[in-house]
Parts: sequence; C-alpha cells; structure tokens
Amino acid sequence: MSEIITPRTVSGFVELLPGAQLQFERMKKTLERVYESFGFLPFDTPVMEPSEILLAKGGGETDKQIYSVSNANGGSDYAMRFDLTVPLARYVAQHYGELAFPFRRYHIGRVYRGERPQRGRFREFYQADIDVVGDGELDVINDAEMPAIIYKIFTEWGLTRFRIRINNRKLLTGFYEILGLGDKAAEIMRAADKLEKIGADKVRGILVDDAGVPSDKADEILAFMASSSGSADDTLKALESRRGINALYDEGLSELSAVVDGVRAFGVPDENFLIDLTISRGLDYYTGTVYETQLIDYPEIGSPCSGGRYDNLASHYTKQKLPGVGISVGLSRLFWALCDMGLVDTDGRKSGCDVLIMPMVDSPKSAIEAANAMHAAGLKAQLYFEKKKFKAKMNYANRLGVPFVVIIGEDEEAAGEVSLKDMRSGEQQRINAADAAKFVRDTLDGETVPPLIIEK
Amino acid sequence: MSEIITPRTVSGFVELLPGAQLQFERMKKTLERVYESFGFLPFDTPVMEPSEILLAKGGGETDKQIYSVSNANGGSDYAMRFDLTVPLARYVAQHYGELAFPFRRYHIGRVYRGERPQRGRFREFYQADIDVVGDGELDVINDAEMPAIIYKIFTEWGLTRFRIRINNRKLLTGFYEILGLGDKAAEIMRAADKLEKIGADKVRGILVDDAGVPSDKADEILAFMASSSGSADDTLKALESRRGINALYDEGLSELSAVVDGVRAFGVPDENFLIDLTISRGLDYYTGTVYETQLIDYPEIGSPCSGGRYDNLASHYTKQKLPGVGISVGLSRLFWALCDMGLVDTDGRKSGCDVLIMPMVDSPKSAIEAANAMHAAGLKAQLYFEKKKFKAKMNYANRLGVPFVVIIGEDEEAAGEVSLKDMRSGEQQRINAADAAKFVRDTLDGETVPPLIIEK
Repeated sequence: MSEIITPRTVSGFVELLPGAQLQFERMKKTLERVYESFGFLPFDTPVMEPSEILLAKGGGETDKQIYSVSNANGGSDYAMRFDLTVPLARYVAQHYGELAFPFRRYHIGRVYRGERPQRGRFREFYQADIDVVGDGELDVINDAEMPAIIYKIFTEWGLTRFRIRINNRKLLTGFYEILGLGDKAAEIMRAADKLEKIGADKVRGILVDDAGVPSDKADEILAFMASSSGSADDTLKALESRRGINALYDEGLSELSAVVDGVRAFGVPDENFLIDLTISRGLDYYTGTVYETQLIDYPEIGSPCSGGRYDNLASHYTKQKLPGVGISVGLSRLFWALCDMGLVDTDGRKSGCDVLIMPMVDSPKSAIEAANAMHAAGLKAQLYFEKKKFKAKMNYANRLGVPFVVIIGEDEEAAGEVSLKDMRSGEQQRINAADAAKFVRDTLDGETVPPLIIEK
Repeated sequence: MSEIITPRTVSGFVELLPGAQLQFERMKKTLERVYESFGFLPFDTPVMEPSEILLAKGGGETDKQIYSVSNANGGSDYAMRFDLTVPLARYVAQHYGELAFPFRRYHIGRVYRGERPQRGRFREFYQADIDVVGDGELDVINDAEMPAIIYKIFTEWGLTRFRIRINNRKLLTGFYEILGLGDKAAEIMRAADKLEKIGADKVRGILVDDAGVPSDKADEILAFMASSSGSADDTLKALESRRGINALYDEGLSELSAVVDGVRAFGVPDENFLIDLTISRGLDYYTGTVYETQLIDYPEIGSPCSGGRYDNLASHYTKQKLPGVGISVGLSRLFWALCDMGLVDTDGRKSGCDVLIMPMVDSPKSAIEAANAMHAAGLKAQLYFEKKKFKAKMNYANRLGVPFVVIIGEDEEAAGEVSLKDMRSGEQQRINAADAAKFVRDTLDGETVPPLIIEK
C-alpha cells in the first residue's frame, strides 16, 4: 500500500465546489454572450509568454510577482502572463498583417501574480477583457460602446443598483494646464482618485503638502471635482463654461460629450451612469476616456469593471500605432465577493441537469430509452444506474437539486411508461417517455430563472 | 523611443488566427453541450498543483516533462499539471465529503508537457475529459454511456466515417490466464496493441522472442485477436465459446456484452462501433472496459478520443475506493490534424457577427439604433464607426466574412431606414431597422450551417 499524500491546492489558488462552479459558469456565459453580440471574437493565447515580452515595460511591482517556468529538459526563459493586455499587444503586433482592423476580441482567461495570498485576493484569477484596437486611429464613438456593454452584462447578471463612472484624462490634463499645473497633472490625478476613499480634507493635504499645489488652486481642484456630483448633463454644462481656453481640455470635453450621447443612444438609463471627474485609472497607459464601475450598495467591492482609451497598445513590440479602448472585469474577485456577501446562491443546484433518470429494474434498456427521449427534446438528462434503494436514489436527486426525476419500476417498465416527479412540487404522473420529455421541456420553458445575483 | 522587442510565442505553444479560433470554439462548444446533456458538471482546477501531488505516482517520462514554477517572492514547490486526471483525483479526494457520488464532471482545459516541440505536438494543449466516479462501486452500464457520448460528439462535428473500438482488459487477462500466460499478460497486451501498426508477423516475433511466449500460444493469441474482425455480435459469439473456464474472462465477457447492449440502446449504429480485442490502452491504470476511436479514412490521426474503466482513481490521495470510467479527447492535436488535412474551413468566417453596421453619416445615432434593433432580435451586430470610404468599409466586411451588412447613408438616415445587403447573394433592400433585424433573423434561422468537419 503506497503512502497517502494529503490532497491540497497551492495557497492562493482556488477551485470551486459544484454549486459555485455552476454559478461561475453562468457568469462567464453571460459575458461570452454579450461580448459576442457586440461583435467581439473569442480569443486565446498561451498562458506563458517569453520573459522579454512580459518584462518589456519594465519596473514596478508586477515584475516581482511574475512566475517563471522551467523543466528538467533544459532551462527556459518564459513566464506566466500577469494580465491579458500584454498578450493582446504581442498578438496584434505579431499577426498585424493577418488581422482586419478595428480588431475586436474578448478574452476570458486566467492570469498569475505571485503576491502574498490574502482574503479575496488570488494568485491565479480570471479576467474577462474586451478591446477594440484600431490601426492608426479609432473613432471616439467606440468609447461609448463600452458602458453599453457593461450595462448589459450587469443587468443580465441581475444587478440594478450600479453606476458606470466615466471621465476623460485629456479633460483633466487640460484643466490642470489651465491652472498652470500641467507638470503636476499625473500627481494630482493620483491624489484626486482617492477622494471617495479618504475625503476632501486629506486629498487637499496631499495636493498642498506633497504635490506642492498652491492652496487656492487646491480649492479650485476640489471644487472642480465636486462639480460632477449631479447628472451627466449638469456636469457637461458646468464643464462647458471653461471651453475655449485650452485645446486639450476642449478635445477631452468634446469626447466626453460624444460618449454621453452615445451611451444614451445605446439605451443606458441615466441612473446607471455618470461623469465622475475624480477617476483617472492609475496607469499612464490610458490617454482619453476612462471607466470605473460601482455597486451602489456594496462600495467595498471596489470597481468590478474598469478600463479606458489608450493611444498605443503595442509600442514595445511594433512601430505601428495601435490605439484602442477596452474594459476588464475582475471575474474571480467579483465572484468571490458576491458569494462572500451571500448575493449568489451556490447551494441550490449542484447539477446542471433537468432530469435524473432512476431505473429500479434490472435491465437498463427502458432507462436508456427515457434518456434518449429527454436528449431528443434538448434536455439535460443524467442516468443513475447504481443499484441502490429508492430512498438512497432520492437522496442523491435531492443533493443534486435536480428539478425532475424519472422513476422506472417494474410496473412502469411493463407498461412502457415512466413515473415523472417534479421535485419542487412533489407532483408525480405516469406517462410515456416522450410525453414526459415534452412535459419537462414545457414546464422549464415556462419558468423564469432567478437572476444570478440577488441584490439585497 | 524604446527598443522594439520582436513579438513571438514560446516554441511549442500555439495560438490561432481568428478564422481558426472561431472553428476551435465551435468544436469546444459541441463538447460542452453534449457533455452537459448527459449530466456532466462544468469543472475547473488550478493550472498548478503542489509538486508532491503531481509526482505522487512517480517515475516515467512524464516527470521529466513537468514544468516547475517559481517567483521572486520566494521559492515554491508547485508545478504545471500534465493531465486532467491527477487534478480530478486530488479534487475528489480533497472534497470527498462535499460531493454527491457518482460524481460526473467534464473538464476542458490546458495541460503542459515540456517535451521537444515537433510537428503536430505541443507543449501546451487542450484536453476535454469526462469521468463518472463512484464511491466504492460503479455500475458497468456507465461504461456503455461513453461510446454513446463519443458518437454524439463526432456526429455533431460532422464526422460519419469513424469507429469506436471497445475492449475489456479483464477479458484479455482472463484469456492469457487460460493460456497459462497470466504472468505475461501486461507484456502481451502491449505487443498486441501494436498489431494494426506493425502487422501480425512482427507481433508474433515480439511475443515469441521478447516475451518468451511458446510458438503455438502465440498463434492462438493472434487467432484470438483476429476473431474480432467482424461485427460485435460475431465477436461476442466467438468469445462465448470459452465461457466457463476462467472467472475473470467470464466477468470481462459479461461486461463487454452489457456494454454492447447498452451502446445499441443509446442508438449508436453498428457501423460506428466494434469490439477490437487488440486494444488495451498502455496504462495499468485501466482495469475493465477500454475505448479507442478511429477516423476510418484518416488512421494517421491515431485515436482522437480514448479512455476506459479504472478501479481506483485516487489511491495516492485517499483510502476511499473510487472506481470510475472516463474518456479524453485530445482536442488541440485533433484540431491541428483536421486543419492540416484541410477538413476544417479556417478561412471563411473571420468574425462571429451576423451583421456589420456601417454608418456613412456624421451622427452615430441611427447606426446605434440599428445595432439596438439587431441585438433585440438576438443577433450579433458589430458597429463600424471609422471614417472610411465606402469601398474600404466593404473591404472590411469582406475580410470578416459577415453574411449581412447594414449601410446608413444620408438618404437612409433622412428616411429613418437602412440599406440591408446580403453579402452572399449581393441582394440589397431599403427597410427600417426592426424589419431588417427580423429579415436577418429569419434568413439565418432558415439556413443550414455546414458541419465543422467536412469529410473528403
């Protein structure tokens, strides 16, 4: 007898039990469906990239978190991807001549960061990205599509109380130039981004003490931020008052205005989006429109979906200028947080099956025929052949949480029928297999499936 | 200006261009749909496992091919999975108390083997596995379900000329015991497995010269193998003649007979399956039914889907006895081979979109409204906002291979209509957006999509 090795997963790497996995798949399928409906291509790249590709940007905390990979057949110079943007940039640069631009892809995949594991943060996690990448240029109206896609996804998941926050970094940079603080723009943006978290007083402190912004200008910055507390139209109106002073500001404002018009045309209700002048996304990578999202009743989740417009996707790998716009859903973290707060039911269905077929007779023939009938009706039907007592079989059905059970005893077998039981109502009927399949199909088609996320 | 790093992928790691990716996704979706229809759960485990888990079995070529992983934040003792069976075994052992048995899962995921890259063999590749795992015992009728699933998948992919080969290792072992060669059973099975590749003479040579099988017994073995050249019924009849001599043989024969009956009950036509007494799957892991598959006109592809019955899934990680049965599709290799032989069209559609919407006017409003109408009809619609000439826009539509294009010029905008063009027929009509959506929906619903694989 060989030694037993305690089964365990690597720290910071998670896996789901069946009930949770089914809900996570639902979440992913919604993303796939909505992304595809807007013309994004499914996409996949190797989980490892050559190290020089991953380290091209250089510096930063990310480098230390990179997992490098090797095997006994020889050293290797490659490592695990830490995001889905670098693989996209490398792919588009590498296959430039074979792609049609704008290139639209979605990528739902896992990325790897060797950070210290902590509650709700993982070393292996799913991201779900979309990007529209242009060749040389990309119309700003593409920026308006992103909030429409976020709105559709969140709504289909069952969320209603959320806000998509939109801003424009050209507008911010132009404003700081107007104030004569153009050289401090990046620093000011980083401070302002913390406004919601730490409050106006502390941001003022950082601006004045750390960034060396004159006191009156700090006040003006805070007043500017506060001007976006109303509707998008009110904010745009207030912003219009500064038009004509700085070209970058004007360009940013026109873009923001076009995005708001576009978002409305896509049918996103006013209560689900706003202009938020405080957000800027940390990275210098973003150059125009930026997005964040907020679940109104759960601000502690942070922004489940963020992104923005960039001027040049792949400058490290090609001389082609490839501007684009994209968003990324932090899928694993969001799912974990939603489950942690009890907003996703991971304990109901433990099987995707519509019907469990339980023969109580020796021959499997009638059970297989019942399964064939269910499959022909497009149903998911599992056969349960094990020689167990009826009660044990029903226990199994209950543990799986299947809505219907087909029982075939000697009487049913002799009559060429089955007993069909609705596990929710307890109602049972004797019927032939084809009619049973039709009944299950019609019943399930007539039912409204509760949303994935139940807001409380 | 920063230095340009040549974009490349790691050797032995592949990625697909859009046309191929779309077809690969189709292949995967068929697997998901069929697996789910038989009640298999979606499943996912970390791509890395603790090294002691992966190396538990010990020995063999696999160990040398394992990729180990580390990062700058400290050494780590984990590595990339090389198959999907070890993660399943570890998962079931670890979460034993929280699972309902039989536990049915499907797992479509990537595995990693650091072997020397060569044509058609990859270091990162997809496998698509299903397993039914019992707790203590598992009825043999589960073994009959696997060929039914293979049949459905292959058929939905478009294959007709294939054979599922079924055998039973108990039967083989019993037969060798009858011949007084029980101690050489494993060696004989390995030799017999090569029959199709190297021919009877060479197998005879291996049996006699290497395995020390007496000449007359070698002839008897070859005659036994040849007895499975006919229909399953003929083979079973021939096998029945030896019943009553060896208990293991009898058990294997009863199982094989039950599997054949079950496979037929599931509706698998006789021309698509047979008993093949030569196959045994190399691994000692398999203990009963074994499967291989063959594309009749493309034997060089080998067996795209194989598997079998095992007595004990997770003996390294738990004392629970967990018998099961499963199959695995070597997805990446199969897809590569099919494309290589020109059986999958990777050059037609480069977009999953049903409609490309091309505004030729300044305001995006009417185009967005057209997109909304298409989305409401459940269509995949992409907006093409770029300011390009009409010809350039049509070129883009042609490159993507979309079936329909919506054109909105000044006339259409003024009339509140669109021009809808069927790109296949060239037919064009002026119509409002909702009617256009309905027309596209009805047209596409009425069309038969060619199968994924076109046999030649």
